Amino acid sequence: MERLKQQINFVMEIDKLKHIYRQNLVADGSRRENDVEHSWHLAIMAVVLQEYTPQQVDLIRVIKMVLLHDLVEIDAGDTFAYDAEAGYDKEEREQAAADRLYGLLPPDQEQELRALWDEFEARESVEAKFASALDRMQPLLNNYNTQGGTWQTHDVSSAQVRKRMGPVGEGALKLGEYVDTLIEDAISQGILKR
Amino acid sequence: MERLKQQINFVMEIDKLKHIYRQNLVADGSRRENDVEHSWHLAIMAVVLQEYTPQQVDLIRVIKMVLLHDLVEIDAGDTFAYDAEAGYDKEEREQAAADRLYGLLPPDQEQELRALWDEFEARESVEAKFASALDRMQPLLNNYNTQGGTWQTHDVSSAQVRKRMGPVGEGALKLGEYVDTLIEDAISQGILKR
Repeated sequence: MERLKQQINFVMEIDKLKHIYRQNLVADGSRRENDVEHSWHLAIMAVVLQEYTPQQVDLIRVIKMVLLHDLVEIDAGDTFAYDAEAGYDKEEREQAAADRLYGLLPPDQEQELRALWDEFEARESVEAKFASALDRMQPLLNNYNTQGGTWQTHDVSSAQVRKRMGPVGEGALKLGEYVDTLIEDAISQGILKR
Repeated sequence: MERLKQQINFVMEIDKLKHIYRQNLVADGSRRENDVEHSWHLAIMAVVLQEYTPQQVDLIRVIKMVLLHDLVEIDAGDTFAYDAEAGYDKEEREQAAADRLYGLLPPDQEQELRALWDEFEARESVEAKFASALDRMQPLLNNYNTQGGTWQTHDVSSAQVRKRMGPVGEGALKLGEYVDTLIEDAISQGILKR
């Protein structure tokens, strides 16, 4: 029973991720999105868009990565992507959070899931690159569909967005091309400054 | 590009699931939980608790099921588990919703994901039984951790909860036994009426 109790303890602790709100809005613009909603969306995108990776991905690994990639923000908080200063001690805070949170699990599961998070962060494997592509693309879709969303509220430029979207093409070339067309269109519409 | 546009259209449409609120609360009791948060939680539980199924499950199929099992509620709305009357035309409403929502996808993906939803609903395969076990167990964990939660607000009895939790043991015997101990303990604590 001890092992199951540890697992349930982890399951209950991660409920806190439902209270970590991101800068970007949900698609109808009515409120900010939380990390759990973002993570769920990435997992579905992984299922639906996996055909665009340069080689076949191990889908279950991608999905585990995206479901848990923001877990550390329970302790470390969300850092806005376009806020350079807030990022200065981000890695340290997130490593400590990972130690605590994954450490709630039985050792074999701690090791597996922590390794997947490290892999996601390193962005080297085909799975991590695809997960990262989705992580960058999803808020762009929401910004594009909410008249510029956080691009407008935080005065973000198209150059910043292009740089931020670099990993999309690295993870899935065609998705990178698609994102480029949305950026161009957002500029034309006047919802993203040139 | 047509295929990708259909896929993105689906991805954006399902964002609406973030606005479908369930009766049960998140684990700190501060607000109701939405379908997306519930679905994400089930997916993590599938990863962490898969060892308790009677035979090895195809985890990716379980996860696809739980991520999308409530999608039809975008059109059909959430039906409270202990409200018998609201359930009378539930199936019809949900089938129509499934036609529309999965129909946004390219035909091959529509077929795959719709079949998985049908499989979940039929609760016959080992994957569907496990998915269903998690779907029943997760709100119980939240009710147990929020001084009775919806058991209290909706005056639900332990007999009703025991019946509702039947599928937990069918999907994973040890999880069913664990749930039984929580029910007993909830009665002892006076947060669930005998």
